[in-house]
This record gives sequence, structure tokens and C-alpha cells, in this order.
Amino acid sequence: MDSKPALQFDADDIQRPTLVLDPGRVKANIERMAAKAEGAGVRLRPHFKTHQSAAIGGWFRERGVQAITVSSVRMARYFAEAGWQDITIAIPLNPRESSAVAELADEVSLGVLIDHEAPLQALADDLRRPVDVWIKIDTGYGRAGVRWDDGDRLRRLATGLGAASGLRYTGVLTHDGHSYHASARAEILAIHKTSVQRLGAARAVLDQRLGVTGRISIGDTPTCSVLDTFAGVDEIRPGNFVFYDLMQASLDVCAPSDIAVAVACPVISSYPSRGEILLHGGAVHLSKEALEVGAGRSVFGYISDVSSGGLGVPRADAPVISISQEHGIVRLPSPLLESVSIGDLVLVYPVHSCLACDLHDHYRTVGGEILTRL
Amino acid sequence: MDSKPALQFDADDIQRPTLVLDPGRVKANIERMAAKAEGAGVRLRPHFKTHQSAAIGGWFRERGVQAITVSSVRMARYFAEAGWQDITIAIPLNPRESSAVAELADEVSLGVLIDHEAPLQALADDLRRPVDVWIKIDTGYGRAGVRWDDGDRLRRLATGLGAASGLRYTGVLTHDGHSYHASARAEILAIHKTSVQRLGAARAVLDQRLGVTGRISIGDTPTCSVLDTFAGVDEIRPGNFVFYDLMQASLDVCAPSDIAVAVACPVISSYPSRGEILLHGGAVHLSKEALEVGAGRSVFGYISDVSSGGLGVPRADAPVISISQEHGIVRLPSPLLESVSIGDLVLVYPVHSCLACDLHDHYRTVGGEILTRL
Repeated sequence: MDSKPALQFDADDIQRPTLVLDPGRVKANIERMAAKAEGAGVRLRPHFKTHQSAAIGGWFRERGVQAITVSSVRMARYFAEAGWQDITIAIPLNPRESSAVAELADEVSLGVLIDHEAPLQALADDLRRPVDVWIKIDTGYGRAGVRWDDGDRLRRLATGLGAASGLRYTGVLTHDGHSYHASARAEILAIHKTSVQRLGAARAVLDQRLGVTGRISIGDTPTCSVLDTFAGVDEIRPGNFVFYDLMQASLDVCAPSDIAVAVACPVISSYPSRGEILLHGGAVHLSKEALEVGAGRSVFGYISDVSSGGLGVPRADAPVISISQEHGIVRLPSPLLESVSIGDLVLVYPVHSCLACDLHDHYRTVGGEILTRL
Repeated sequence: MDSKPALQFDADDIQRPTLVLDPGRVKANIERMAAKAEGAGVRLRPHFKTHQSAAIGGWFRERGVQAITVSSVRMARYFAEAGWQDITIAIPLNPRESSAVAELADEVSLGVLIDHEAPLQALADDLRRPVDVWIKIDTGYGRAGVRWDDGDRLRRLATGLGAASGLRYTGVLTHDGHSYHASARAEILAIHKTSVQRLGAARAVLDQRLGVTGRISIGDTPTCSVLDTFAGVDEIRPGNFVFYDLMQASLDVCAPSDIAVAVACPVISSYPSRGEILLHGGAVHLSKEALEVGAGRSVFGYISDVSSGGLGVPRADAPVISISQEHGIVRLPSPLLESVSIGDLVLVYPVHSCLACDLHDHYRTVGGEILTRL
């Protein structure tokens, strides 16, 4: 008989909250998306903001990926130094960083995002080598981008772009962030279909002015995970899929056993009368991102059952119900609670892996290896 | 006529989201709390988890503060190396760190928190020099601590403590985190009154077993800011007051002009038809902590009007209404929106300064000085 509780993660080297990663799951997630992109005939330009690690980037390179997406100039600099030669910075160009952008463009093939004509000329003035310019289109998410049907602005952008030397019109790009709020796969498919139509309409306006056929780039993990083909699309830029998380599992975009990161947290107290244990593990280790689970209740993570080995699978009956800066409270049914001792380690699956990983300065693999990150 | 828009923060050295601090406000917040503690005859042992900076710690030391609180062993190590000699680690002892705790106890006067008898003996075995042991009491918050009325557990703790050499019973300690959810000052006062009564009851049980008169330590910013006297209390441990934030201002615990930190964010796009601007500044710069402002709406920060100089004051008509990893969206009334250009910097006041500051590796003062932090 195994005397180890199903929740106890065995790692003598871990003293405090530590981000743990399962390389097997990460590589399987990469393989699945890379194979899908090949089959669909689209370029995979994965978003590296989720992992921000040169070592994990290396696993993409081993699978044949050559082009990447990042969300800041700082991240572009980090990955350029790690040897990446084709990088798109997928956030509207910040004029305050145009000289840093120009320096990067001296070294790598660089793509930038524009959704306003204002920063074009200053960027052109700073550049010594040309950059690829993607026009960011808002196809319905309502965050960044020119509205797909704002012909005036699209024409003004085309004019500005045509007049600025060193800025190569490359195509139209969107991020369907509203797919994260879809309640079913059918809704994700509908968002994608509408989005591609709208991108096509915006591109037609730009292409006509600029005399170039632009490409179409999309990129959100729900869409790229759920679809098998991408008619009319040239490039996909999913990021979160490398790790997935509870949010994606709750959307049925991944299986719980696809989630490739969790935060190992020491159990520091136990309150059987409340049915709760206390973790050293809080908002500075998991982020405050919450899943709404009905009746106004929020969940900040689920503890893993590790009896199957590795990272195990999240247990729906072991939610993190409250977090403050360094503390987390987990509610557990009685037999499970009694199986955990103060000083044990448990693994907490994060709600949003991009934000949770950003709070840590390294990954520790399930095998004990340390992977650095930005 | 001043041509500068009221929202434009002037700092040519800032290219990307940067935490900005007003030393004058910080020192005024420290002075107010230190003078209050002196007047009330209680020891001020400020919680340094909010700022985590040796430089800012120095401003407390200049004001005569000699004892501090931290929320992790890592933070205790950082401040011990910065010369602090009297440190309480205000999170229940993590048995996985007991040898690191023992090392710290070799160097400084160390206080630890206990709310369960399980880790006592292992800690005692690791220690070479004694530590002060505070019994953490749950007076109603429901996070950590022995319930004030759980006589059995209090007696078991006293027995364990009495039997473990090197563990000096010091008193009872609580954190009234539920004061953060109080809707009015009267409610904060009522929470405090109940809490002190309950701490007294718990202490009586411990004192009787251990033959020592324990001290009483409390510590939350709402209570310590609102009260002027602390009858029955020996020590206060507020932390957030050093910076305050929008949450404290919304509780009427501080004035908006007391808030001493904000995140400078570049404006990277503008959408006049939506009445919105886009910032480079998101969840990795501000945290996902939100203020609920009615009708299911959340706010992640307010832009500052800096026309009065320094950090200025938050504008209620300029809320950050949505954030993702690196992007923030601000809704602005029309004349204000038109006063802002792409490439300008704006200051965003955070909802929860402890979490926002933890996301940055340094402070830049309004005068341009860089202060490092853990």
C-alpha cells in the first residue's frame, strides 16, 4: 500500500512557492499545434509571451519553428539574443521605443504593429533597415486595432505607410481575445469565421491603395486549438497553448491533463474545523486571475492529484478559494484534508498561466531541472 | 498658457511601463504613522512587504523605526542584509524553511508565527539561538490563525511551546484583513474593538499555561490609519500605508493625494470613436486586482491629473476599464481624450499597491532617481 497522499508532490529541493513545468506536456502541446499548422498549410508564429524562456523556445526550434511573436520590445531583445531571427512585436508600436525597435531591426527580421498613422514617420526616421508592418485590425474584440469597417482610417494608414520609407506593408493581423469568453466551441468557430471575413474586407482596402497583396495573421489559443483548418489565413500566432491553464480547460479548449505548469506550494497550516488548509502561495505566485464558478464564487486555482505521476490532474474538489499577497486558502473534503500534513508540498494549477508564469524568474521541471526565463 | 495636457507626465527617460514613486508622500505617510504610534504608546513594526526596498526601509530607520515585519523568509533575508536587526516573519512558519529561519536567527532578533503545534519541535531542533514566537490568532478574518475561542488548540500550542527549547512565547498576533472589506469607518472601529477583546481572551489561555504575560500585536492599514489610540495593544504592523492605493482611498482610509506610487504607461493608440486610449501597461504591470464600481463594472486603476505637479491626483473620469497581459484600455471624456497624444506618458494609480509594486524590479522617483527592491 502506498502511504503517500494523492496530493503530496515529492520534491525535497523545493522550500518555497516554485513554478513547476512538465516538459513532456509542453512538447506534446508544441507538437500538436505545429503538426496542425503544417497540415493546414499556415505558418505557425507562436507567441512567446506565455513562457518567455529561451530554453522553451529551443523546443519550438527543434520542432522546426523559425518565426515568433512577442508582446514587448524587451521580450524581442531577449529572444533576439537567444538567436531568433524573425520576430513580430504584437502590440501597437510605442513611439518611445522606436530607437530600440530600429536597433533590433538592424539585427533581425522584425515585424511591428500599427493601428494609427501617428507613429509612422518617427519610426521611419529612426530605421536603418526596413521592418514589416502589420496593420492591426479590430474585428470585434474592442481592445486594439483599426475597426475592420473604418475605411477612412484604413486609407489614411495606407497613405502614411506608402509615404514612409523602410516600412513594408505586410498584411492585416488580429487577436480575437473575445474567444476567451466564448461559452462553447460553436461560438469560437463563429467568432473566427466573422473575423476572417472582416480581415479580408480591411485588407482589400489596404491592398488597393498599396498595390500589394497583404497576408492575414490571426492568433488566439481557443481558435487555434479548436479549429483544424484555417481557410483564408496565412499565419497563426497562438501563445497560451504551450502551457494551457484552467481557463482554457474550462472552455473545453484543452484537456486538464494538457496543462503543463503548476505552482508547488508548501502547506503551512490546517484548519479541519473549516475544512481548509493554508498554503504559502498567493497573488504574487498565482496572480489574482479568477475563474467564476457560479453563485458569485471565485476560484484562483485547483490542487493537483499527483498519484498518476508528473504534474497529475487538477481536482475539482480542491479549489483555492481565496488568496492574498503570500497566502492561499484551499477548501478540501475531509478525507483529503486529513491526508495532507503541514510541511507537505501541493501543486496548484493556475487560472491563467501567462500571468502566473510572469511572476516567477525560473521554471523547475518535474525532473528537477532549472530553466531560466526573462 | 500652458500647452501641456493635464494627463501628460513629463519624463524623457521612461520608455516602457515604470513604477514611479513620490518620496515626499512616502515620508509624510511614514511620519504620520510613526507620530501616531508614539502618541499612542505602541511600537510601530511596519510591514515591509508593500515596498520591499532597502532604500525605502532607510526612510523608516531615519524616523526612528527599528523593528519590521515581512511575509517571507526571502524578504527577511533581504532586510537582514540591509542591516535590520529585529524582524518578524508574519506568515505561519513553513517547516521546509526551518533551517533558513535558524540561520537568520543566528544573525538577527527573529520573530516567527505559529498557529499549529506540528512544526514546533522541528524548528526547535534546527535552532542555535532562540526565536520569539507569536501565536497567530484568527479573530474573525478566517484566513490564518487559531480561532480565539478554540481553547483546546490554544492549550495544545502552549504545551508544545513550553516543551520546545529556544522558542520564547512572546504574545498573540492577528491581521484583521476583513477591515479591507469594511464599508465605513464605524465598521473598521467595530472590527478592531472585537478583535482586541478576542486577542485578550486567547492570550489569557496561553499566559496561564506558560506563566508569561504575552504582548498583543495587530496590523492592518485601515485600522491603524483610522484609529488614534490602541488601548490594550502593544504593537502595530501596518504595511500598505507607506504607499496607500485606490482601494484604501475608496474605503476613505486615506486621501487620494496620499497615494505615493503610480505606474507610468506610454499611450500607444487612441480610439476617439470609442472614447478610449490604449496603454502599454497591463496585468503584468498593475496586477489584476480590481475595484468593483457598481453595475458589474471593474476598474483596474485611474489616470492621474498631474497639472498640480508630482504624482498628481487620480481622476475619477479616467478609469482603466480593461487590462490584459501588456495592454490597458482607458475610457476618457472627449476633451480629455483629445489632449493626449500617442507617445505621451500617463500615470496610472494602482488598485492595490502591494501587488502592483511586486511586479516591478525598481522604483523611479518623480525626480528621476532609481531605488532598487527585492
